[in-house]
Amino acid sequence: MNRARVDGGRLWDSLMEMAELGATPRGGVDRQALTDADRAARERFAGWCEDAGCTVTVDAIGNLFARRPGRDPGRAPVVTGSHLDSQPTGGRFDGVFGVLAGLEVVRALNDAGVETEGPVEVVNWTNEEGARFAPGMLGSGVFAGVYPLDWALHLADAEGHTVGEELARIGFAGPETPGDHAIGAYLEAHIEQGPLLEARGLPVGVVTGVQALRWFQVTVHGEEAHAGTTPMDARRDALLAAARVVQAVAETGREHRPHGRATVGRIAARPGTPNVVPGGASFTVDMRHPDEDAAEAMEQALRQACHDAAAATGTEVTVERVSHDRPTRFHPACVDAVRAAAESLEIGHMEMVSGGGHDAVHVAAVAPAGMVFAPCERGISHNEAENAAPDDLAAACDVLLHAILRLDANPPAAAG
Amino acid sequence: MNRARVDGGRLWDSLMEMAELGATPRGGVDRQALTDADRAARERFAGWCEDAGCTVTVDAIGNLFARRPGRDPGRAPVVTGSHLDSQPTGGRFDGVFGVLAGLEVVRALNDAGVETEGPVEVVNWTNEEGARFAPGMLGSGVFAGVYPLDWALHLADAEGHTVGEELARIGFAGPETPGDHAIGAYLEAHIEQGPLLEARGLPVGVVTGVQALRWFQVTVHGEEAHAGTTPMDARRDALLAAARVVQAVAETGREHRPHGRATVGRIAARPGTPNVVPGGASFTVDMRHPDEDAAEAMEQALRQACHDAAAATGTEVTVERVSHDRPTRFHPACVDAVRAAAESLEIGHMEMVSGGGHDAVHVAAVAPAGMVFAPCERGISHNEAENAAPDDLAAACDVLLHAILRLDANPPAAAG
Repeated sequence: MNRARVDGGRLWDSLMEMAELGATPRGGVDRQALTDADRAARERFAGWCEDAGCTVTVDAIGNLFARRPGRDPGRAPVVTGSHLDSQPTGGRFDGVFGVLAGLEVVRALNDAGVETEGPVEVVNWTNEEGARFAPGMLGSGVFAGVYPLDWALHLADAEGHTVGEELARIGFAGPETPGDHAIGAYLEAHIEQGPLLEARGLPVGVVTGVQALRWFQVTVHGEEAHAGTTPMDARRDALLAAARVVQAVAETGREHRPHGRATVGRIAARPGTPNVVPGGASFTVDMRHPDEDAAEAMEQALRQACHDAAAATGTEVTVERVSHDRPTRFHPACVDAVRAAAESLEIGHMEMVSGGGHDAVHVAAVAPAGMVFAPCERGISHNEAENAAPDDLAAACDVLLHAILRLDANPPAAAG
Repeated sequence: MNRARVDGGRLWDSLMEMAELGATPRGGVDRQALTDADRAARERFAGWCEDAGCTVTVDAIGNLFARRPGRDPGRAPVVTGSHLDSQPTGGRFDGVFGVLAGLEVVRALNDAGVETEGPVEVVNWTNEEGARFAPGMLGSGVFAGVYPLDWALHLADAEGHTVGEELARIGFAGPETPGDHAIGAYLEAHIEQGPLLEARGLPVGVVTGVQALRWFQVTVHGEEAHAGTTPMDARRDALLAAARVVQAVAETGREHRPHGRATVGRIAARPGTPNVVPGGASFTVDMRHPDEDAAEAMEQALRQACHDAAAATGTEVTVERVSHDRPTRFHPACVDAVRAAAESLEIGHMEMVSGGGHDAVHVAAVAPAGMVFAPCERGISHNEAENAAPDDLAAACDVLLHAILRLDANPPAAAG
C-alpha cells in the first residue's frame, strides 16, 4: 500500500483560514452562494490549488475544477470535492471540508512524490446550499443535466439578483460548458451532519447512498382585512391556513419515524403588519425518506393537509413541487474503494445512508460516485455551533486519499 | 343653524389627488410613515392648508397642525384630523379621509365667510399605522404623554432606520414640544373599517368609544438543525411552536365571539432557509375586545397557549406586551355634538363602538374627544381594494363641520 498520508494539521489550518471568510460573531460562517464572501473563498481556494501545481478551470455555472496531472493526460480524472458556500448561519465544515480535503489529498500526493495514472481533480460546486438561490445542489445539477443552464442562470434571490448576474459580478462565469468535463470517478468527503458516527466512536462513514428528497413551495391566498373590525367568522386568514399545514407537516414526519424528515424552514405572511389579517402566506416544505414509496406517501399527506386547511379557512392553497430527488445508491466500485481504504488503514468505519442531499447525488447520475463521512459534534450542522475533531477529519481525509489511489489504479466501469 | 356646507366634489378630488402619492398598481396606497411618499403627502397637505389661509406648525414627533384663526386667539382650538400614513398595501381613505375632511371644513368655512369663536385646526398625526415603526398611533401617543418622545425617536424600522433619523431626513422634525399645544376639543372623521353602517344604509356613525387593544411580540427560541438528518423527536423546532400559537390565537378570538378579535399579522422563522429546522421564530399578536375583562382573559389565553407550545416542542416562548390600550369612552360633549349635527342636518346615523384603534384614543386622555364614522365598501380596509362612496363621505364631512361649529359655540369642560 502506498505510504502517502495527509497532514491533519495542515488540513485543519486551511479549514480555519477559510472560515475567516464570511465569519460570524458567534463562530460560524455566512458565505452564501455568489456573495462577496463566496468570491473570496473561491479566490483563496483557487490560489492554494495553483500553488499546489494545479490548473484551474471554471464552467458557465461557476463550478471550479483544479487539476493535478497524472501520467496519462487522456484518462478521465478521479474527481473529489464539495462546496464552499454556506447557510446564512452555517458552520465551518459543511461543504468546505470536502473541498479542502481534496486540496489536502493533492498536497499529500505532492509531498510523497506520487504520480497517479490519470489526473486528480478537486471541484467546488456552485450553490449547494440553496439558501440564497433555490434549489440547492444547483451547480452539480446543471453539470448532470438535471437543470437547464439557462434556467439556472435566471434564478433570482430575494432581492431579484440572478445567478447569472452574480456569477458575472464575482468573476466566476467561466467558459466551460457544464457537463462537458469528463469524470472517471467521483468521491465526496463531508461531515455526517447526523449523530451516528459520534455515537459509535467511529471516524469514517462509508456512504452507500442518499435518501429521497422533495422540496415544495406552498402558497396561500386569503383576503387582507382589518384586524380590529373584521369578525373572526368573516376572515379568510392565509397565515392561519399556513399554521395548520406547518403542524401537519411535522405530524407527517412523526408518522414516518424513524427515517422520515419533514420541515418547514421559511415562512412569510403578507402584507406582514400586526393589524392586518394576512391575505397571503407562503412557506417551504422539505421532506425526506430513504424509501421512495414512503416519500411519495409523505407528499400525498402534505397535499391532503393543504386541501383540508384551505377548506377550514376559506382560503386557496397551492402546492408546487420544486425538486424531486429519488433515493441514490452509490457505485459499488466507489463504495468498495472507500471501505477498502479504511480497512487497509485500519481506521474504524461503518456503512450508512446519508440523510442530507449532496452534490454526489447529481454526479452519481453521470459518473461512478461515492462519499466519505466524518463525524461532527452532536450531529449539529446548518448551525454556527457546527464542530468537528481535527483527528477525525484527518482520518477521513486519509481514507479519501487512499480511496482515490484505488480508483486511479482500478478505474470503475462507467455504468453506475 | 349655520348654512355652511362642505363641497363633496372638492373633498373627493382632494382625496384622489392625495391617493396619487404612494399609489400602488392595484389601486391602493403604500405611504408608510416617514417615507418619501409620506413626505410628499405632508408637503401637499401643508401647501393646501396654507392656500386656505392656515398657519402650519410641526412638533418634534412630526405632528402637523394647520390653524385657521378665530375671533378670540386666546381660546383653545377645536382640532380635527387623522393621519396621512398608510399600510404597505393600504387604501385611499384610511386616515387620509379624516385629514382632508378637516381641510374641507376649513375651505367650507372660508367659502361661507364664517368667523369661528376660537381657532379651528387640522392635524396630521405621525405614524398611526405602525406598519413601519411599531407601535402605531405613535405621534398622538407622544402628544398625550403615553410614550416618551426620546423613546419614540429611537424606534427603528426593519432596516434599522429610526423615527428621529427619518423625521429629520424628510424635513418634519419640528420645533414644537409635543403636547405643548392646547386642544379645546378634538373630533376625528374616519371610515368605519367595518360592515355595520353599510349594512344599515346609514352614512354616519356617532362613535361613542373604542374597544380595548393589546399588542404582543412573541419570540420562540429552539435549536437550528439540519432538516435532512435531525430525527423528528430530536428537534426543538421554533416555527412548529409558533404555528401552534397562531392556531390558539384564532381559537381564542372565536371563543370571544362576537366582539373578540385576535390576529397574527407578521411572522418570521430563523435562519429562514428551506433545509434548516428553525432555531428561532417571532410573530405579532393583536387582540381586541370592547370589554377590558374579556381583553384580559384573551391575554391570559395567549400566555397559556405559549406555555403549552413551549412544553410540547422543547422550546422557550416569551411573550412581551408591546402596547395596552384600555377601552375608550369619548367625551359626552363631543358625542352629543356629532349626534346633534347629524340630527340637525337630517343625516341618517347610528351610535357605535369603534373596532379599530385611532389617534382619538390617545387624544381623549388629554382633551375632550369624539369621532365621526363614514361607511366603506364591504367593510374592507387595510387593503388596496378599500373604497367609499363620495356622497357618504360628503355627508360625514358635513356632520363634522357642524359638530365643530357646535363645539366652537359651546366649548366642553376640559375634564373627560
